Amino acid sequence: MNESLPTTSLSSSLSTQSASLSESSQYLSLDDPIRERIRTACEEVRQKTPLAQSFTNFVTINLVANAQLAAGGSAAMSFLPDDIEDIDAISGASYINVGTLLPSYKDDLGIIAKTFFERKSLWVLDPVAAGLGSTRTHILKTFADYPPTIVRANASEIIALCGIWGISLKTDSEGKVNRPAGVESIDDVDSATLYAIELARYLREHNATHTAAVAVSGERDLITDGDCTYRLPGGNAMMTKITGAGCSLGGVTATYLAVSDPLTAALAASLHYNRASEQAGEVAKGPGSFQTEFLDALWQMQPATIATSRIIEMR
Amino acid sequence: MNESLPTTSLSSSLSTQSASLSESSQYLSLDDPIRERIRTACEEVRQKTPLAQSFTNFVTINLVANAQLAAGGSAAMSFLPDDIEDIDAISGASYINVGTLLPSYKDDLGIIAKTFFERKSLWVLDPVAAGLGSTRTHILKTFADYPPTIVRANASEIIALCGIWGISLKTDSEGKVNRPAGVESIDDVDSATLYAIELARYLREHNATHTAAVAVSGERDLITDGDCTYRLPGGNAMMTKITGAGCSLGGVTATYLAVSDPLTAALAASLHYNRASEQAGEVAKGPGSFQTEFLDALWQMQPATIATSRIIEMR
Amino acid sequence: MNESLPTTSLSSSLSTQSASLSESSQYLSLDDPIRERIRTACEEVRQKTPLAQSFTNFVTINLVANAQLAAGGSAAMSFLPDDIEDIDAISGASYINVGTLLPSYKDDLGIIAKTFFERKSLWVLDPVAAGLGSTRTHILKTFADYPPTIVRANASEIIALCGIWGISLKTDSEGKVNRPAGVESIDDVDSATLYAIELARYLREHNATHTAAVAVSGERDLITDGDCTYRLPGGNAMMTKITGAGCSLGGVTATYLAVSDPLTAALAASLHYNRASEQAGEVAKGPGSFQTEFLDALWQMQPATIATSRIIEMR
Repeated sequence: MNESLPTTSLSSSLSTQSASLSESSQYLSLDDPIRERIRTACEEVRQKTPLAQSFTNFVTINLVANAQLAAGGSAAMSFLPDDIEDIDAISGASYINVGTLLPSYKDDLGIIAKTFFERKSLWVLDPVAAGLGSTRTHILKTFADYPPTIVRANASEIIALCGIWGISLKTDSEGKVNRPAGVESIDDVDSATLYAIELARYLREHNATHTAAVAVSGERDLITDGDCTYRLPGGNAMMTKITGAGCSLGGVTATYLAVSDPLTAALAASLHYNRASEQAGEVAKGPGSFQTEFLDALWQMQPATIATSRIIEMR
Repeated sequence: MNESLPTTSLSSSLSTQSASLSESSQYLSLDDPIRERIRTACEEVRQKTPLAQSFTNFVTINLVANAQLAAGGSAAMSFLPDDIEDIDAISGASYINVGTLLPSYKDDLGIIAKTFFERKSLWVLDPVAAGLGSTRTHILKTFADYPPTIVRANASEIIALCGIWGISLKTDSEGKVNRPAGVESIDDVDSATLYAIELARYLREHNATHTAAVAVSGERDLITDGDCTYRLPGGNAMMTKITGAGCSLGGVTATYLAVSDPLTAALAASLHYNRASEQAGEVAKGPGSFQTEFLDALWQMQPATIATSRIIEMR
Repeated sequence: MNESLPTTSLSSSLSTQSASLSESSQYLSLDDPIRERIRTACEEVRQKTPLAQSFTNFVTINLVANAQLAAGGSAAMSFLPDDIEDIDAISGASYINVGTLLPSYKDDLGIIAKTFFERKSLWVLDPVAAGLGSTRTHILKTFADYPPTIVRANASEIIALCGIWGISLKTDSEGKVNRPAGVESIDDVDSATLYAIELARYLREHNATHTAAVAVSGERDLITDGDCTYRLPGGNAMMTKITGAGCSLGGVTATYLAVSDPLTAALAASLHYNRASEQAGEVAKGPGSFQTEFLDALWQMQPATIATSRIIEMR
């Protein structure tokens, strides 16, 4: 998803651009087993309409709920620890987004993360604006001991969160960062690649279920579970011209997490978003009609289309 | 309104399905006086653009306001007791929805309900998620002594609210619940029928104006004032795929309550919603365009169309 | 923008109505230098996508952000003083809207206004519902010593804010209010003209940058910097049938303030809104499609179209 693209052309669907692959990366085979897991996740969301509750910001809370519904799930939003705990008992996964903080969140969000940890509940974190505001930094710090199953963010937020949690890049005996061969500097997502991988490893080591994934949204989304790393070409730049594209992707990732493992959930949600944004971009006249068409496209998108998307495996 | 329908077909307008009436229920005559009251309410909303203020959840607060405007009314939203009291002086009715609670609401909502009681102000309650969360249960309990004019909810929330307020079903000398003959098990609204009737009687006995109605949203909406009970066939299942269909119906019910008696208000609002959702469903391609078309249809819908809707009177 | 028009006709674009000019007012020449400043502001917003942060109400916070994006800027929303201060460092201007107040705002908003003052940060105030609620009045009073760069409001809010800040109309030696010759009673904006002029003078005298403007939204918008006063014919009455037309105009005014002087910013934002609402009104079928079309039109509108709008200069 093109969160940071400066382009303003409605027709600039990225799905047609040629991906410049390094020798060590390659397009994922249509036979790869992960594709079957993605397709199953898409089908299960539509069959089970899983509930994923959200504690999310006021700007885009409506779009988060509507995107979860349009993707096939169901939604519940809460801000009180007692509400969250009761709804967690009937939710398949939860979502926390630290966008528009209120004073009461300072203590409450830590309590909620601890509750999720003790109940081994699956949850997705969107560390919106990580690095800005002392209250936000305090809250994100309290999550370090009870980390989420999935983090979804843009590149700078991923790097800022790693800083807050003291996650640094591994260096070899010569003090060099072990940069995988496939990492070329295509966009700013690249700069967060190694952080995302380390973050995924941190999550699975410290969270309650010891399974994890990290999704970095940008011109070419990156998804990793700490071992396998994928890049997802495509999407539409108009996604940066509606508020909540990233926030609602976090919510839909929680919807998918309610029916599948973290890596599959992150892939399915981002691929679902990219295909829907491309479809919306073909007919939209501006950001107003784009949002309407995007929700319709989320609703219409077939599991097979999502599962057969172009995926680049980084080696 | 089809809040709980699992169907995902856009074209499944329910207005064309044949209603299976028990012998003791019947379609309401086009000459029935309630229809004239409904038509007058619709016309007065458009002529007077009555203000109905709302204390409602953050997920759907925008849709509540836009639906009130599209239905012909005007909107104001507040969360502070001092604001509510000042705006109540210029509002025809108010609306409280307990969706996304914040800590300050725990005491404030009881104060607000008491203020409405003392001022004999008309208000609509949507007990969203009744039964979940200790804070919500506390707040709903404080409303027991200062109950609203109208409760609008889905079936499970109606039953949960009755539990919180200690309202139980009447039994006859043999200990059997007096189930009216017209109650067949068509959908889950049925299961709440007797609770809705008892709740309406509780409201009118305990609220400030001694007039009341209860609206149960579902596949076939139910409206009762404790004496007369109506079922409203029709609507569109896509209403369950946009967030806030029920919440915004509560707001529009308050808009109608500003110009009419509770039973008429509940009927007019639900019928207005059902006809608009049917019109929207005929052209929408998914939940994005459905919401847009629904607001347009609310705006365009004629009082005569609303007032001549098919209505089933339960005997 | 037609905030208070009772008309409900979608096609009633006001841009074609003949303006009844007094002898002492006149249409602004196409050569007037202010037009070049407006065009430059429009172009710079699109080139620089300036960030304008908002502390705004929950009803329309999504539309504020989406309108800022559609107009060419970027958006961030916050409610904590520590957040606001950090984001202010990277924002070109800020926006405060006192719509849906929460208890914590009572002290926090005064702290934020003082911070803006000390940092000489530019900001726009929308005193929504000024005069209603003791908390709102308290908050607006705290702004008196640290006033904003621009106030945007409807006529009654402008007059109420003047009352709260102790701004009264100047009278001549005979005790008569000095009413400029161009002030005819066309709509309720007229009644606020002299208050708006005095308010603009108060702002520039007391705020940190000593530059200011006031925008009064109504059937024919009024913009003044205390010396020059303009009326902007046109717009579409459907703007009164979507919630947040005024709130989001405040946000877009902050977007323009990030790249231009207050008078130019207020003119550019209101003209951009009027031209976009007219374009939307030509195709919308109701308030749902109107909002979608309006955002598309904000996005599509050319700087030249905005800058060559009909403008009436009051003498």
